[in-house]
Amino acid sequence: VARRHDTVSFLSDFGTVDGAPAHITSIIRDLAPHARVIDLTHEVAPFDIRGGSLTLARSVPHVAAGVILAVVDPGAGAGRPPVAIEVADGAGVFVGPDNGLLAPAVAMAGSAERAVLLDDAEYHLAVVSPTSGARDVLAPVVAHLCNGVDLGELGTSVDPGLLVPGVVPLPRDEDGSLLCEVLWVDRFGNVQLNVSPEELTDRWDVGTGSLVRVTTVDALGNPHVRSAALVDAFAGLANGAVGMLRDGHGMCSLVVDRASAAVELGLAPGGLVVLAPLVDDEGPSTSPDTPVVTNVALRRKG
Amino acid sequence: VARRHDTVSFLSDFGTVDGAPAHITSIIRDLAPHARVIDLTHEVAPFDIRGGSLTLARSVPHVAAGVILAVVDPGAGAGRPPVAIEVADGAGVFVGPDNGLLAPAVAMAGSAERAVLLDDAEYHLAVVSPTSGARDVLAPVVAHLCNGVDLGELGTSVDPGLLVPGVVPLPRDEDGSLLCEVLWVDRFGNVQLNVSPEELTDRWDVGTGSLVRVTTVDALGNPHVRSAALVDAFAGLANGAVGMLRDGHGMCSLVVDRASAAVELGLAPGGLVVLAPLVDDEGPSTSPDTPVVTNVALRRKG
Amino acid sequence: VARRHDTVSFLSDFGTVDGAPAHITSIIRDLAPHARVIDLTHEVAPFDIRGGSLTLARSVPHVAAGVILAVVDPGAGAGRPPVAIEVADGAGVFVGPDNGLLAPAVAMAGSAERAVLLDDAEYHLAVVSPTSGARDVLAPVVAHLCNGVDLGELGTSVDPGLLVPGVVPLPRDEDGSLLCEVLWVDRFGNVQLNVSPEELTDRWDVGTGSLVRVTTVDALGNPHVRSAALVDAFAGLANGAVGMLRDGHGMCSLVVDRASAAVELGLAPGGLVVLAPLVDDEGPSTSPDTPVVTNVALRRKG
Repeated sequence: VARRHDTVSFLSDFGTVDGAPAHITSIIRDLAPHARVIDLTHEVAPFDIRGGSLTLARSVPHVAAGVILAVVDPGAGAGRPPVAIEVADGAGVFVGPDNGLLAPAVAMAGSAERAVLLDDAEYHLAVVSPTSGARDVLAPVVAHLCNGVDLGELGTSVDPGLLVPGVVPLPRDEDGSLLCEVLWVDRFGNVQLNVSPEELTDRWDVGTGSLVRVTTVDALGNPHVRSAALVDAFAGLANGAVGMLRDGHGMCSLVVDRASAAVELGLAPGGLVVLAPLVDDEGPSTSPDTPVVTNVALRRKG
Repeated sequence: VARRHDTVSFLSDFGTVDGAPAHITSIIRDLAPHARVIDLTHEVAPFDIRGGSLTLARSVPHVAAGVILAVVDPGAGAGRPPVAIEVADGAGVFVGPDNGLLAPAVAMAGSAERAVLLDDAEYHLAVVSPTSGARDVLAPVVAHLCNGVDLGELGTSVDPGLLVPGVVPLPRDEDGSLLCEVLWVDRFGNVQLNVSPEELTDRWDVGTGSLVRVTTVDALGNPHVRSAALVDAFAGLANGAVGMLRDGHGMCSLVVDRASAAVELGLAPGGLVVLAPLVDDEGPSTSPDTPVVTNVALRRKG
Repeated sequence: VARRHDTVSFLSDFGTVDGAPAHITSIIRDLAPHARVIDLTHEVAPFDIRGGSLTLARSVPHVAAGVILAVVDPGAGAGRPPVAIEVADGAGVFVGPDNGLLAPAVAMAGSAERAVLLDDAEYHLAVVSPTSGARDVLAPVVAHLCNGVDLGELGTSVDPGLLVPGVVPLPRDEDGSLLCEVLWVDRFGNVQLNVSPEELTDRWDVGTGSLVRVTTVDALGNPHVRSAALVDAFAGLANGAVGMLRDGHGMCSLVVDRASAAVELGLAPGGLVVLAPLVDDEGPSTSPDTPVVTNVALRRKG
């Protein structure tokens, strides 16, 4: 059988202290020495399927062709067997638990073309413990895929439509505003929302330089209203000002130049952000200490 | 000379902030370009020989064939020269300080077949500082091993029995109980003890579903008694209940489903855990706030 | 075109949580599969050009031949285009922002022989965002360099002398003392100063075993005076005593055996340390709680 995949992209919530990702990499190294493992991240918060699935989906446009191994599995060893899912005419194979972790990434990669339950023990190592399935089952399966074993040989075929779906929050229109969710806060404090610039410009007559009203809600339930300028670069922002730009994944991110927008706005993943266009004669509060609820006359596009 | 090793597995307490592991990897890359370096972990606590040696021993069954480089060396630059130790008919070579760090892993790999003191400067780079021995001495030695230099050429042969032994705590029987030590707390809060399931079933008439009495001692010296069910999977555990299962390294680990057993039980590496079988009519305290000492009529096996 | 570089050494302030370094590594893997990426560190503090430039410069003597990619870019997407700088007859190429980050490393590597502004979009991916230049511009440029594309093809030639210089703090003589700056505190708390042992022995009649007066200033502006023995190894230090030795990068580092000199002395990167030789009859305070200012009769060398 010909070698089929040369690269394994690997994401997990294992951390890098315990050595768990390295044990998996070592098994792949022994069984498929030609394969290179690229660690996407192992710092997904423990058990955080949502965060892991979003990080994986963000990575899909950039990963090398080959196998994508992803493990965030709070129910380790229980329930459904793990799965392998082929995409892009076999150029990519996702391997991981069937708990929704892979679904948004698979969707981003096109769609699931073939899927199998990884239930053929012939392709596994001896399973030591319910906690060691990633090492004892997934690592050898990944190596066999790299070595050219066909997906169909690894277990029982399954209709991809029957796999556990992912949860991707969509923005919601309400009274001329757009209720968004924070998908991600990056290392620099930039706040990615679940909305693209196109979704704003489709709805409202806004563009670079426009102000958008940004409403957040604090822990006591009080709303805080800020304005954010739509900008093309950090350089367009005054010192300390909140802006919104297209981030590296094509989504709207709230940003502050050389500072953390997440800190400035008190936002974390999963948080609610209400966006609305800002009319010219509206004087929004720019102080987060002064909750303001304003009625805005929206200028709808077109 | 033929290439001899293709993979270097690398563990240290260097962290990943300073670049120190990468400098060593870079030197190996320059001297032995064919070799792949797999980072087991560099997050061993600074100077923690015990923790490092246990992490290394846990890794041994999973590392790829080749050189294992391990560095946790509080006495850097002082005392004994570092060593290289051959195992498994030369399929593996451990390289590191002679301070007990390597010993448990070597024992796990079988036994030391040959050992040398790394005292031949011909195979070293110029040593800049007492703090740079890992980079200036061990990195080039590892590369030479990968390139096929025989262990015996690297320095003075030494009887492996004269190397500093490791410290592996053994469980101790006392009054029908087993005094155990916490070896490790993993990222998910699972608490590995220095006892295997077989050591329990050899002593007591217990099996899956049995309850075991788990006694811990708090900072004030007060005992806390809990029961833990022996389970085969997390799924066998009620919400919040403490269980004990065979972990991925074949040892007993105390666990809580989707939560930290270490937090629940107030345990950290090195902590004392007293295990005993639980008789059916015993009503153990399950509250950590109510210290209870009970006399248990043990049903010894056989 | 022949392959030209086999290794990419990569430093950034991206952290390892978000996957950003892996996305760059993945693009290089796809475009130049033969190239190996070695992560120097991605834990440079966000936006810390100074810290990143010092870590990069410390790495230069140890990195493998090839491309060095470094990204710490607070002004991402604004201002000057990034640059590529050739050193050592083309054996090394630095790629990164033109903000001073690369300059000390380039100087350490010899000097800049050729430099280009990376302004030819033919060698870039589509740029998604001002925040994604490292991924969309630098990653493909690095891959093209590895594949043998000549530096000159990648953009407009620029006089290396016109690039933004780095800031390397130099020690300053004052009243017989030497005002030094903390360059770096490593994971073990060793405190690297911006002065080499030779700069001390050139000035003063000191050598191994000599005592040096070490004055630090606390947050309230009060001076604290300690003595530090010049030592060749940690083993030369009494328990808890502060010593100074040549570190792995050839600079003076303040150290404490198996403890943190940074904690003991209250020092952090950028901090001021005043060094002076200690005359034999001087009784320095060794308590950090007792600020002492003494007039020292210096014995100048020669």
